[in-house]
Amino acid sequence: MNFSLRKRQTAAAAKKAGVEGMLITHLPDVRYLCGFTGSSAALVLVGGRSVLFTDGRYTAQAKAEAPGTKVVIATKPSVTAACEWLEAAGVRRCGFDGAHTTVAGLETMRKALSAKVRRGMFVAVGPVVARLREVKDAEEITKIRAAAQVGCELFDGMLTYLEPGLTETQVAATLEYAARLAGAEGMSFDTIVASGERSALPHGRATGAKLPKRGFVTLDFGVILDGYLSDMTRTVHMGKAMPDERDVYDSVLEAQEAAVAAVAPGVSAGEVDEAARSVLRRVKLDTYFSHSTGHGVGLEIHEGPRLASKQTQVLEQGMVITIEPGVYMPGRFGLRIEDMVLVTATGGEILTPSVKAWVEL
Amino acid sequence: MNFSLRKRQTAAAAKKAGVEGMLITHLPDVRYLCGFTGSSAALVLVGGRSVLFTDGRYTAQAKAEAPGTKVVIATKPSVTAACEWLEAAGVRRCGFDGAHTTVAGLETMRKALSAKVRRGMFVAVGPVVARLREVKDAEEITKIRAAAQVGCELFDGMLTYLEPGLTETQVAATLEYAARLAGAEGMSFDTIVASGERSALPHGRATGAKLPKRGFVTLDFGVILDGYLSDMTRTVHMGKAMPDERDVYDSVLEAQEAAVAAVAPGVSAGEVDEAARSVLRRVKLDTYFSHSTGHGVGLEIHEGPRLASKQTQVLEQGMVITIEPGVYMPGRFGLRIEDMVLVTATGGEILTPSVKAWVEL
Repeated sequence: MNFSLRKRQTAAAAKKAGVEGMLITHLPDVRYLCGFTGSSAALVLVGGRSVLFTDGRYTAQAKAEAPGTKVVIATKPSVTAACEWLEAAGVRRCGFDGAHTTVAGLETMRKALSAKVRRGMFVAVGPVVARLREVKDAEEITKIRAAAQVGCELFDGMLTYLEPGLTETQVAATLEYAARLAGAEGMSFDTIVASGERSALPHGRATGAKLPKRGFVTLDFGVILDGYLSDMTRTVHMGKAMPDERDVYDSVLEAQEAAVAAVAPGVSAGEVDEAARSVLRRVKLDTYFSHSTGHGVGLEIHEGPRLASKQTQVLEQGMVITIEPGVYMPGRFGLRIEDMVLVTATGGEILTPSVKAWVEL
Repeated sequence: MNFSLRKRQTAAAAKKAGVEGMLITHLPDVRYLCGFTGSSAALVLVGGRSVLFTDGRYTAQAKAEAPGTKVVIATKPSVTAACEWLEAAGVRRCGFDGAHTTVAGLETMRKALSAKVRRGMFVAVGPVVARLREVKDAEEITKIRAAAQVGCELFDGMLTYLEPGLTETQVAATLEYAARLAGAEGMSFDTIVASGERSALPHGRATGAKLPKRGFVTLDFGVILDGYLSDMTRTVHMGKAMPDERDVYDSVLEAQEAAVAAVAPGVSAGEVDEAARSVLRRVKLDTYFSHSTGHGVGLEIHEGPRLASKQTQVLEQGMVITIEPGVYMPGRFGLRIEDMVLVTATGGEILTPSVKAWVEL
């Protein structure tokens, strides 16, 4: 990973925001900028310098993971040590990300300073690192591709395993076990297995409910591989479908494919959302599509950009996003189809090429 | 769950803090106060009224889960809708928890108000709900007991499964699979399997490393059952131990048992920590005990109280805490032993009674 470049880009953004440096405490941002993966960290970027503050549990790990960064093992909380260092280094105006700093956390930061520099030291400069992270570099894309590939293999395995009578929890257990054996460090989020009437729940985590003889089963899951997350959804039908079930499926698939086709650098997130939404509007299903079309994914499951109605942010080459329209009819059924899509120089490349055509098991 | 009592207790604490009501956005707090488990929520408590704001995905779920609370399905972000409601209801001074509200989140809250009431509306009143949550009621204790019991059964199963050559990841996979089949909604945190030299890492998440023919294996894991978390650690030895490995184990066990024995209402968290630490100090291992002795656990994995050096908070009947001293010798080995302990009227009751005596596999 090119930590040096990322640190320079962050420093440039900080300078533009009118601050001398940045204090970074959001752990995925710390990992992105210096490589450290521990659970206690504060990273300071000032001028050309970068200093990582952590505690005694991570002495060996910090040095191994963040070779280009000075490591300080603090005996007080990392963030307090970082603030004291900033003051001693003569910094008087330091940026931080207000979206990842709590009101109480900011108070702790301020209290670590002497009264004479406290006022004016910390300036909320917006999601500087989050913005950088939206566009993935080649190494990140390789890792995301690998995670997405494992996701596809897991889903393919599920196709020969799913059968009526299995509980949703058994399905999740089997999927997660296979994920672990495939090398996953964990799942990207609580696995969603929503079957039968429960398929109408957009976020139906696996329960003791049994897969029906006839009805939809939605699987929405992801794996973490080398820190990077995958995210995909497929919906299959157990038994013979009713005509309206098949019709809704075809409409959601058409909406999903329309949104994927709309992906390209320079296109706004809102336009991609609208590509999916307009297909469902045409067949009067848009009121059942109760969430946004997608989101960025990388070191975290929900990153920028947000693909929602009227979002003006423009897609850039190297972004990795999900495209996941769904239709949910309470008390009846629901379904969602989701791919991860890489924004290429000319369009969108699907990273999760598992079958999306109608599957009846 | 006695949501009505919890809401009254929160309202009383708010009144004491000099505010007219509370805006609660931390999801475990929302669940604790009204029962709603969705991922988008803002709860307002004002006078005797409670109003839950969520979105269209949760219409049916919110009404089912939070029967004693008025539910508003908002078309704008839940927190924005809640702030607008507060202003319209005539509230001019509302408390919030600064430890669970970001600087950017507070800005969003303020922007939802008209300029004339914005100033002075939101007051950080400290961890009001978090404090209430530290002391568990009978229903919560029943749920925590059940989760802890599943944890013990899982560990017992591991004793007949562990063998040299299995990867840490396989061990985690098998444990998590069994947890799912036992009804767990998920794991409390990323399962820690740290074997051989890696046992010296306090937070060694499972990797591809193989269990050694001779050496320690530390398992630290927990399950989520009906929303409540378990947390336990056991360390076993593969093959025949060196005398110093056995000595260190015995010292950590003695420290752990001393801390458990120190648990009682009226005892400070620092005293319990010191009970463990002083045993290790006596045998000159205290410098290798690089973390605190424990923490509260319930709807979240790290709740209050914090059992660390010099903590003056006093234990109360109904608290559920972990007692988990460890010794970590970089490049050599490490181990930790952890129980969940309920603070009873007269002492501490271990909720995770799996074997702690030396185990050689």
